[in-house]
Amino acid sequence: MRSPLPDYLLEVVDACASDRSGALADYIPDLARADPERLGVALSTIDGEVYAAGDVDVEFTIQSISKPFVYALAIQDSGLDEVLRRISVEPSGNAFNELSLEAGTGRPYNPMINAGAIASHALVVDGLSSEDERVERVLEAFSELAGRELHVNEAVFESEMSTAHRNLGIAHMLRAQGIIEDDPEEIVRGYTRQCSIDVTARDLALMSATLANSGRQPQSGRRIIDPRVVRQVLSVMLSCGMYDAAGDWITTVGIPAKSGVSGGVIGALPGQLGLAVFSPRLDEHGNSVRGVQVCERLSADTGLHLMESVQPARSIMSAPEVDIDGDGARTVTVRLRGSMLFTGAERVLRALSQLDTGDLGSLVVDLEDVFTMSDVAVRMLVEAGRRVALDGVSVTVHDPGELLGDVSADALGAAVVVDEPLAAG
Amino acid sequence: MRSPLPDYLLEVVDACASDRSGALADYIPDLARADPERLGVALSTIDGEVYAAGDVDVEFTIQSISKPFVYALAIQDSGLDEVLRRISVEPSGNAFNELSLEAGTGRPYNPMINAGAIASHALVVDGLSSEDERVERVLEAFSELAGRELHVNEAVFESEMSTAHRNLGIAHMLRAQGIIEDDPEEIVRGYTRQCSIDVTARDLALMSATLANSGRQPQSGRRIIDPRVVRQVLSVMLSCGMYDAAGDWITTVGIPAKSGVSGGVIGALPGQLGLAVFSPRLDEHGNSVRGVQVCERLSADTGLHLMESVQPARSIMSAPEVDIDGDGARTVTVRLRGSMLFTGAERVLRALSQLDTGDLGSLVVDLEDVFTMSDVAVRMLVEAGRRVALDGVSVTVHDPGELLGDVSADALGAAVVVDEPLAAG
Amino acid sequence: MRSPLPDYLLEVVDACASDRSGALADYIPDLARADPERLGVALSTIDGEVYAAGDVDVEFTIQSISKPFVYALAIQDSGLDEVLRRISVEPSGNAFNELSLEAGTGRPYNPMINAGAIASHALVVDGLSSEDERVERVLEAFSELAGRELHVNEAVFESEMSTAHRNLGIAHMLRAQGIIEDDPEEIVRGYTRQCSIDVTARDLALMSATLANSGRQPQSGRRIIDPRVVRQVLSVMLSCGMYDAAGDWITTVGIPAKSGVSGGVIGALPGQLGLAVFSPRLDEHGNSVRGVQVCERLSADTGLHLMESVQPARSIMSAPEVDIDGDGARTVTVRLRGSMLFTGAERVLRALSQLDTGDLGSLVVDLEDVFTMSDVAVRMLVEAGRRVALDGVSVTVHDPGELLGDVSADALGAAVVVDEPLAAG
Amino acid sequence: MRSPLPDYLLEVVDACASDRSGALADYIPDLARADPERLGVALSTIDGEVYAAGDVDVEFTIQSISKPFVYALAIQDSGLDEVLRRISVEPSGNAFNELSLEAGTGRPYNPMINAGAIASHALVVDGLSSEDERVERVLEAFSELAGRELHVNEAVFESEMSTAHRNLGIAHMLRAQGIIEDDPEEIVRGYTRQCSIDVTARDLALMSATLANSGRQPQSGRRIIDPRVVRQVLSVMLSCGMYDAAGDWITTVGIPAKSGVSGGVIGALPGQLGLAVFSPRLDEHGNSVRGVQVCERLSADTGLHLMESVQPARSIMSAPEVDIDGDGARTVTVRLRGSMLFTGAERVLRALSQLDTGDLGSLVVDLEDVFTMSDVAVRMLVEAGRRVALDGVSVTVHDPGELLGDVSADALGAAVVVDEPLAAG
Repeated sequence: MRSPLPDYLLEVVDACASDRSGALADYIPDLARADPERLGVALSTIDGEVYAAGDVDVEFTIQSISKPFVYALAIQDSGLDEVLRRISVEPSGNAFNELSLEAGTGRPYNPMINAGAIASHALVVDGLSSEDERVERVLEAFSELAGRELHVNEAVFESEMSTAHRNLGIAHMLRAQGIIEDDPEEIVRGYTRQCSIDVTARDLALMSATLANSGRQPQSGRRIIDPRVVRQVLSVMLSCGMYDAAGDWITTVGIPAKSGVSGGVIGALPGQLGLAVFSPRLDEHGNSVRGVQVCERLSADTGLHLMESVQPARSIMSAPEVDIDGDGARTVTVRLRGSMLFTGAERVLRALSQLDTGDLGSLVVDLEDVFTMSDVAVRMLVEAGRRVALDGVSVTVHDPGELLGDVSADALGAAVVVDEPLAAG
Repeated sequence: MRSPLPDYLLEVVDACASDRSGALADYIPDLARADPERLGVALSTIDGEVYAAGDVDVEFTIQSISKPFVYALAIQDSGLDEVLRRISVEPSGNAFNELSLEAGTGRPYNPMINAGAIASHALVVDGLSSEDERVERVLEAFSELAGRELHVNEAVFESEMSTAHRNLGIAHMLRAQGIIEDDPEEIVRGYTRQCSIDVTARDLALMSATLANSGRQPQSGRRIIDPRVVRQVLSVMLSCGMYDAAGDWITTVGIPAKSGVSGGVIGALPGQLGLAVFSPRLDEHGNSVRGVQVCERLSADTGLHLMESVQPARSIMSAPEVDIDGDGARTVTVRLRGSMLFTGAERVLRALSQLDTGDLGSLVVDLEDVFTMSDVAVRMLVEAGRRVALDGVSVTVHDPGELLGDVSADALGAAVVVDEPLAAG
Repeated sequence: MRSPLPDYLLEVVDACASDRSGALADYIPDLARADPERLGVALSTIDGEVYAAGDVDVEFTIQSISKPFVYALAIQDSGLDEVLRRISVEPSGNAFNELSLEAGTGRPYNPMINAGAIASHALVVDGLSSEDERVERVLEAFSELAGRELHVNEAVFESEMSTAHRNLGIAHMLRAQGIIEDDPEEIVRGYTRQCSIDVTARDLALMSATLANSGRQPQSGRRIIDPRVVRQVLSVMLSCGMYDAAGDWITTVGIPAKSGVSGGVIGALPGQLGLAVFSPRLDEHGNSVRGVQVCERLSADTGLHLMESVQPARSIMSAPEVDIDGDGARTVTVRLRGSMLFTGAERVLRALSQLDTGDLGSLVVDLEDVFTMSDVAVRMLVEAGRRVALDGVSVTVHDPGELLGDVSADALGAAVVVDEPLAAG
Repeated sequence: MRSPLPDYLLEVVDACASDRSGALADYIPDLARADPERLGVALSTIDGEVYAAGDVDVEFTIQSISKPFVYALAIQDSGLDEVLRRISVEPSGNAFNELSLEAGTGRPYNPMINAGAIASHALVVDGLSSEDERVERVLEAFSELAGRELHVNEAVFESEMSTAHRNLGIAHMLRAQGIIEDDPEEIVRGYTRQCSIDVTARDLALMSATLANSGRQPQSGRRIIDPRVVRQVLSVMLSCGMYDAAGDWITTVGIPAKSGVSGGVIGALPGQLGLAVFSPRLDEHGNSVRGVQVCERLSADTGLHLMESVQPARSIMSAPEVDIDGDGARTVTVRLRGSMLFTGAERVLRALSQLDTGDLGSLVVDLEDVFTMSDVAVRMLVEAGRRVALDGVSVTVHDPGELLGDVSADALGAAVVVDEPLAAG
């Protein structure tokens, strides 16, 4: 069988290709020379399966889509507190001023507008590094995210620098506010290089899928961004990524997203997938006309929306299997599976608390099919094991994947964790 | 074993009770008479298990927490288009005006501020109904959401009406803008009754859990709000529910939420749980001091955050079981489980598309452990079945829960759906 | 000789009559029935000479042109401090909210917008009076200002009350803010009556000329408004009277002004004249199209502009006349004239300080041709007299108009004030 | 007699010297080294009499007080239309952004804020000139305005350039908007030089008095700024010069004014006087604490306020003198005096139109004591002369100052203008 998904993406591409409204960005000569008819869509699942249709291997400069990723690097390199001290996280609303600095604090409203993105760039590495070091850091990280070596498009870089008045204005102003401390011109040069990295829609789908996958690149499996940083980045993409009008995007599309002036749009739905669209004509907000359409259509067709309920806890546990040995002693085996967070752990605890421990001899908990456990879920499961063992039940947890980590003997009490798989029943 | 969760909630209550900052709302005499020391926390899972600690059975008036629910009723009764025509969905930012009407359209910024909530109230039933009919509708729906009969606190209602100048001002202005068409005084009276319904933290946890559960009351199992409406309501709660500063709440707590001036706060994490806190002292934003603290603490301790990745698709399918009969014909059986949305269906399709159909005689798909399937997942699975059958494989889908609904013969091709459970292997 | 001024006004009327752009206000049926072709212009000098052309005797309702005059009454009746506590004096800028209440204070931005005008109306008489008393007070004062008995147009009043939602909204909101304390509906009714008083362009020219004449009605000579109140009112008209864009009006026209929705515009140049235009078609700002044109044209043609320099001090004093009597003692006589304020008095003092008092026997100062002296000018002149007398000169001031008032003997020293005219030299 | 005015100024200085609140500007080292106790006040009449008290001869850098004068130069050099195309004239209100560019047009709100002042500087000479040419032009003009040769304080200039981030930010942004077209760094350097010119309070009083005197330097008598330009500059000073809150300054002080960060404040009342105060400690608005106090006190004590009525027309004309010759033919002589603008001319025309021309032989009009006539007044007087002559009266106008200029014979008809003084009656 051939999967129908590529067919579906082709349909989407065909349907959206007919819209020729919008216009190329014209303030940079190189962008104005793009082929306006290009349209490519790529999806990547969090385990690295990529579905693609259309012009997904055409290179274009990443532009503002670099912002969420460099924001992530800034937090990784300088720490969240330091970054929040310099860049706020609020949607800028109908920003009628050119700077969008917050009253009082002087911070850029958020890292998705130029002021905040320039400030993010300045926080990469350690705030003291050189222009080259910052660009090097960004380029290496982006290459890892995309899974191939990326390069700066020097022609576009030169072209943008010649009309970078606005960004220079912003950078000098940020310097005046103390938001950045290095030379404004160097920072603008580095930032413009960051924006001039060539990518394809396929690259962007994998980069987005890394965000959807808690920071682990879906194909290499390497952790590139810390999960807490990913949470911050996705939150900010949701509220500030696409429109001045955050509420409209959250209600209708409901996917953390970011667009760029060269026609790219990315989206990332945590735990589900990353997506990327490329089509150069822009609407009056500066977003790719067809990019927005594809997002809206995917959200509507597929139910990909942050508020679409997935009820992850309901299938966390198989029905308990009960064995009674010759002595009449019951052994209960529960097999857990999937991604166990707080609500999953709650289900398990609830089931365990309802066990009649009267003639229960042994409880066996099998974690072999669990692929992630959050810290709170680990603590909850360990506490439950300890409590059941206190009731005089022999408790054994099979944890071949070592999800529980180093649990102290104190925490476990009489319960036992083994790293061997449960022998097949 | 006794579940450790109630102990955890008690800890949270104890830790937050020591904060005595903030002040009672004083503009309504009845609110100023509340006991400031009260503190209660309740969580409800989406299958109706309620965990509670502290003063969860003390009644207080629902106030602004009524807003998301009445917004839901307005959409159900008048349609989303009509509601959007009259009420926007944007955060109002640092609202420095008393009205928060959008420039140009004259619409209230969102249904979580008074102007939008008054307009929502006016759209309940059908926009032509009487004051009593609207209040009746609200009271019945709230009673169903809470799972018990609720009542208007007439003393608070009278007290609030005597100082309702601001709401009267808003309602007259909405009438001037054509946002409402009925008598402004009647609408304010009805709206004030809506705000004066007595509830407990336990009630609110169940009401929130209904939102988390796609609109189905967790204990009665009755669908009270349509899933698409729930999506809209949760989205608006996320961006407009708590602070003027939407970005801060989204990044740090990440739970769609709403607070009320009598000291309540609710939160709803789709597919996971509903929560409610009650503690009357308010901070300068008008949110319950301890209510916000409890939310922040729960989010931090438990990882309950919209961007926390649950990876629902990864456990959607058991490993395929292969049987080879005497003739050497293979039968492959796949058992699906959990909540199957787009990304879950993608996993299944990918697995099926990798099947070697060369000597495959039969494919058996078991849906018995699947508890929800989205429309797109149904279409994807049916299409996959049709395609595998086209390869000459005998395809049987066991769907005892009739999740696939009425699939046409055309869509299925040669594949067969039966509503009997799969006989145990 | 026939004055060419009426001819000039006819020319202006003819030139502006050809512009038929703009539209009648349509939200009140009675206004929508106005004859759109009407055009009248009237000027009144501060001594009551009225020049008129076109439809200057057609009645129309005064509408917002009532605002500056009722603001004046509010200050007179309740005191400037009390009024400033409730109404600010700032231009509202590109007011994008319907209320225009100042952040922090909750005060209406200024008395020229509806919120501020409703608050002004509530402060007429004493803030405790009845609806009828307030309307009575306004009607009497307006009649005195216009020099004839005016009446409320009850048909327009009824018509406006039926669509007064916005004003009711504002009034309730002002009540909520504590800006007004009476019943919001009564205040809106009184305010609407105030706006429904019938006037003609001729009436308005005299009303404006009263402002230009420091509050004294030019024809009756009666003081109706205190000069300090007039200063406040003219200042506010200048910055808030016509456009959201105060700077444009101040630079191009430079005349304190106010427009009304029925097509009237007034202007008042202090010490010079009052003007009024009537033409019902309005531009997008709600100002009479031709009314604005006439103002711009008058300002451009005639140099009537607040910043046009009149150099009042330069002719304050005739050349000193010197008489030498038989003993060789000199008598110097100075005749002052015009309106003597600070800079006029400075000229006189300077001249006196340059007098060689060596053989000066007498100084005679003649005030007969001075028609006003400010307090500071009185003090300066008296001090100068005292100082010259200290030099041993016999000083006599002829003040038949008693402009110096009751000057104490201490202040005068040896100088003498007589209320007889100076005998002709 | 010694004039009491210097005593009065000393009193004002003493009264205000006791206030030690506020703080020195500290962002520029050189300003932070100023002596905070300095206080000087100077007034200059429009004929160049200077009254001074306190530290009026201490040099300090002019800073923002240069703005209105350079705005004047920009208009003179580039034309008002060109300047308005690039710089608006609106108060910036509670400017919460650092740039204050107008939505839509991208223009700086007004020339009194840095963005508008930098744009003004760029328009000096001709928009194409070099940095040195612009600074040269400014320095020469300022020297002429002050009546002595001024110099740039190079130490302050260097000091300011080292922290000019904000102005560089603004200039780059203006370049991005197309408001300026030259190199942003050069313009900021020139602008900073302009701000670093050393002046004294005495200098500033004369510079302000030049504005008050329609652009003619009071002591040299040279016209430095065109009267129409002065009108524009004073209008903008009034609405944008001192506070974000324009309305408060207009109502309470009512004098077009401008302050600078080094502690200077100037005020100019058209036709009356210029004033300057110097005291380095600033309030939270960045205005000199004592500078504002002195202005408020002078306005309150002396009635110097734009809306204070001077009624210039009332003394424009002496009572007509009537002579009857032997033949019974009457000759009427009217002597005009002072500054004759529209309202003055109206008075004269009115008197002439009331003359009984029945047996009037001659009309003699004496302009010897008139020191200025506006264009409109000239036209009105000439038209009146023509009309009276048409009635058969012999009309002679004595115009020794040649105020009427070149009036055509057509315009005069049979009336005659002679440039000889009227022989003494």
